[in-house]
Amino acid sequence: MTDSTRYELFYWPTIQGRGELVRLALEEGGASYVDVARLPEADGGGEAALLELLRDHGAGPAPFAAPILRVGSLVLAQTAAILDFLAPRLGLLPADEAARHHALQLQLTIADALTEVHDVHHPIALSLYYEDQREEARRRARHLVAERLPRFVGHFERVLAGSDGHHLLGAPSYVDLSLFQLIRGLEYAFPRAMAGLAADHPRCLALADRVAARPRIAAYLASPRRIPFNQDGIFRHYPELDAAP
Amino acid sequence: MTDSTRYELFYWPTIQGRGELVRLALEEGGASYVDVARLPEADGGGEAALLELLRDHGAGPAPFAAPILRVGSLVLAQTAAILDFLAPRLGLLPADEAARHHALQLQLTIADALTEVHDVHHPIALSLYYEDQREEARRRARHLVAERLPRFVGHFERVLAGSDGHHLLGAPSYVDLSLFQLIRGLEYAFPRAMAGLAADHPRCLALADRVAARPRIAAYLASPRRIPFNQDGIFRHYPELDAAP
Repeated sequence: MTDSTRYELFYWPTIQGRGELVRLALEEGGASYVDVARLPEADGGGEAALLELLRDHGAGPAPFAAPILRVGSLVLAQTAAILDFLAPRLGLLPADEAARHHALQLQLTIADALTEVHDVHHPIALSLYYEDQREEARRRARHLVAERLPRFVGHFERVLAGSDGHHLLGAPSYVDLSLFQLIRGLEYAFPRAMAGLAADHPRCLALADRVAARPRIAAYLASPRRIPFNQDGIFRHYPELDAAP
Repeated sequence: MTDSTRYELFYWPTIQGRGELVRLALEEGGASYVDVARLPEADGGGEAALLELLRDHGAGPAPFAAPILRVGSLVLAQTAAILDFLAPRLGLLPADEAARHHALQLQLTIADALTEVHDVHHPIALSLYYEDQREEARRRARHLVAERLPRFVGHFERVLAGSDGHHLLGAPSYVDLSLFQLIRGLEYAFPRAMAGLAADHPRCLALADRVAARPRIAAYLASPRRIPFNQDGIFRHYPELDAAP
């Protein structure tokens, strides 16, 4: 599928965050896109560009937060809504109508997992530093590692076992890209816990490896466009929060 | 719009929860539906019916959690995915294509608000009782009330101010029904905090009143089909968590 549309992504320029799920879809879809806030401020980029769009978004409802996609006069926020919009345009969905609905279902469960993983280092408030909620984080992490990570990863393993074993929807889709990101992020943030889960979840790990090896994704991951994992995003590696389940 | 499809909703039978957003859409859309788990077990209802569907879901990806909609052979989970599926079928969206995407955007922000409101009484773990995380809940609630509720309610007030002032998308849609539920839930759980927000958010409160007065919604709210707010759902009234912002 070719698509000559010019897409503009507005997201925080120093983290993967939820914006990474959109970046992966744009890359795999071969889209012509600009990651606007990663341009220099002199070229209309930087966080200033994102903040300006949050203030003055044109027609349509105001975005609550980034990521935001701009395509012509359409300004669209919320990661899963952006992916649902992009997927048919970039050839990132099987053709049947049910696939679109099931893709959204799966994407929203990935989104739920991301929220729980994020909140483990911010169990009390987004507005507080990690250091100011470290004890609560430690307590929450024990439950995340023992109960929630096995439940989420086990869920996707079950979905893969019930499909063709290789793709969540039985054929390539954007949801595979997001699951790749979830698995890689968990491996970064919780290496001990994920080592404990590896043996029972071979399909999830194999999917992540296959996505990483796709030509466009491999090129992206090797490029400076891929921001490394760091301690400001959703996935943060605090050894005290990582325990074998 | 008439729709002779028979919809089956599977959700926990004793709470509003996220399932309520689907119930409101089915009611306003005049759908022919069964709230399966609220039927007697002898008639194939009860939690047993929900648990059975979670185990044995037929074709398509497994659901992670309820609510789940079954329509013919389609089994679809995740509240926002269900609403996105139902909306065009039940006449709950403006006709233009951008409206569908913007509705999903707004619905996902409502979903984010619901998650934050739920987690205030479960900041450490879903698997622990409130009483076992009460101190953390109290700490989190101060931030929710002072920072997050004004941000969420303020966001929807801004969206209403930027549309026709009466509907989030400038015309009736399912997202208005969900905002009604969010506002009523917040009024139940945080009456003091919401009293403090009322003066600055007249459009949100007027929208909730208008939705409550729609004939089908008014009939639903007055019927035994509407489960009252209680201390097991997303919205729980713990006075110690409710402070004027």
